[in-house]
Amino acid sequence: MYKGKYPKIPEATIKRLSIYLRCLKKLEEEGNIVVSSQNLADTCCVNSTQIRKDLSYFGEFGTRGVGYNIKTLQEDIKKILGLDTTWNMILVGFGNLGKALLHYKGFHESGYKWVGVFDNDKDLIGQKVFDNLYVEDFKKLDNKKIKEINPDFAVITTPPDVAQDVVNKLILLGIKYFLNFAPTKIKVPDNILLKNVFIIAEFDNLVYNISKIENK
Amino acid sequence: MYKGKYPKIPEATIKRLSIYLRCLKKLEEEGNIVVSSQNLADTCCVNSTQIRKDLSYFGEFGTRGVGYNIKTLQEDIKKILGLDTTWNMILVGFGNLGKALLHYKGFHESGYKWVGVFDNDKDLIGQKVFDNLYVEDFKKLDNKKIKEINPDFAVITTPPDVAQDVVNKLILLGIKYFLNFAPTKIKVPDNILLKNVFIIAEFDNLVYNISKIENK
Repeated sequence: MYKGKYPKIPEATIKRLSIYLRCLKKLEEEGNIVVSSQNLADTCCVNSTQIRKDLSYFGEFGTRGVGYNIKTLQEDIKKILGLDTTWNMILVGFGNLGKALLHYKGFHESGYKWVGVFDNDKDLIGQKVFDNLYVEDFKKLDNKKIKEINPDFAVITTPPDVAQDVVNKLILLGIKYFLNFAPTKIKVPDNILLKNVFIIAEFDNLVYNISKIENK
Repeated sequence: MYKGKYPKIPEATIKRLSIYLRCLKKLEEEGNIVVSSQNLADTCCVNSTQIRKDLSYFGEFGTRGVGYNIKTLQEDIKKILGLDTTWNMILVGFGNLGKALLHYKGFHESGYKWVGVFDNDKDLIGQKVFDNLYVEDFKKLDNKKIKEINPDFAVITTPPDVAQDVVNKLILLGIKYFLNFAPTKIKVPDNILLKNVFIIAEFDNLVYNISKIENK
């Protein structure tokens, strides 16, 4: 594996690495030690040329005629993605989507850890999320609390009309990285990284493909 | 606007068209009639060259020095995406993510319509989703019901371990198009189109970018 700085990698490659990682995990759980490109491709529902191309950005992996060692390749992909360490996350917005994300089982094993959940709804504040995590009042979130829980990034699942204000406050509290699920575009300064996850775009993309097939 | 068949369009372009469409909607709601590429770019948080490039796949839009007519460009993008018609959707899996999708306000105005919600949990079956929509027993879903509600595609928000069986049954009932949110890869025959929405990949992508910036 290449140890230096990587060249500019397509975002689609990074997203597929996430998929390969979870497919490798599944193959490991099924008792496999080694996997061929073709078998990994079948498990991930992509083609094997794509896997080889994606991995080639990062150096040489696997052994010709043998395949990839499942454990090693997982470790290598984790290093590439930055998942060889723990990531502390806070969530703002304890609605249905927030709950869905909090209870997603894949986070823990990938090094993600929820360290705070916030909302401004009095009926939600105080509700238990996990054994040692309760919904807290977003209005009361301050520098002291941030220092205590030390989040690496914030996940925004608030209604769209309050998302910008929430992000503004978090930036003032020193948060630099955001994943925004609220269906609105949020403006941030150049030194802040905010990624939007725009779920309706997935629906539009499916419908675009159906339209082409069906000539609807 | 080009009326014939489009060439192969990058998936990222299609996803950005979804974003442009919602930004145009917002600009219209704010009382605007015309928007320059630059203003549209600012609203969508992309650069204006990207917008012009994305639109150029589909013909000529806007007037040099004036900009885009907001109403016309929305209609054109809707036509491109296939959103100039109604799309009937069923949802299987009435958990947190399912509820979040069902209550997402943007669907209705984009031509999407929920025509059925199914689960296999006795405690959930019979629950009211909307005024005229109740959670129904997935086991009882049959050809008669499908004919009655006429879904264009199915949205899967079940736990991963049952997602493949759910899709298999729906394929037998004649469903050809799927959007899968269950964090597992589902195998489908060649004549079936299934798109996976792999939410943890969005987290991985953010973390990859943070790692590069922070050298963490």
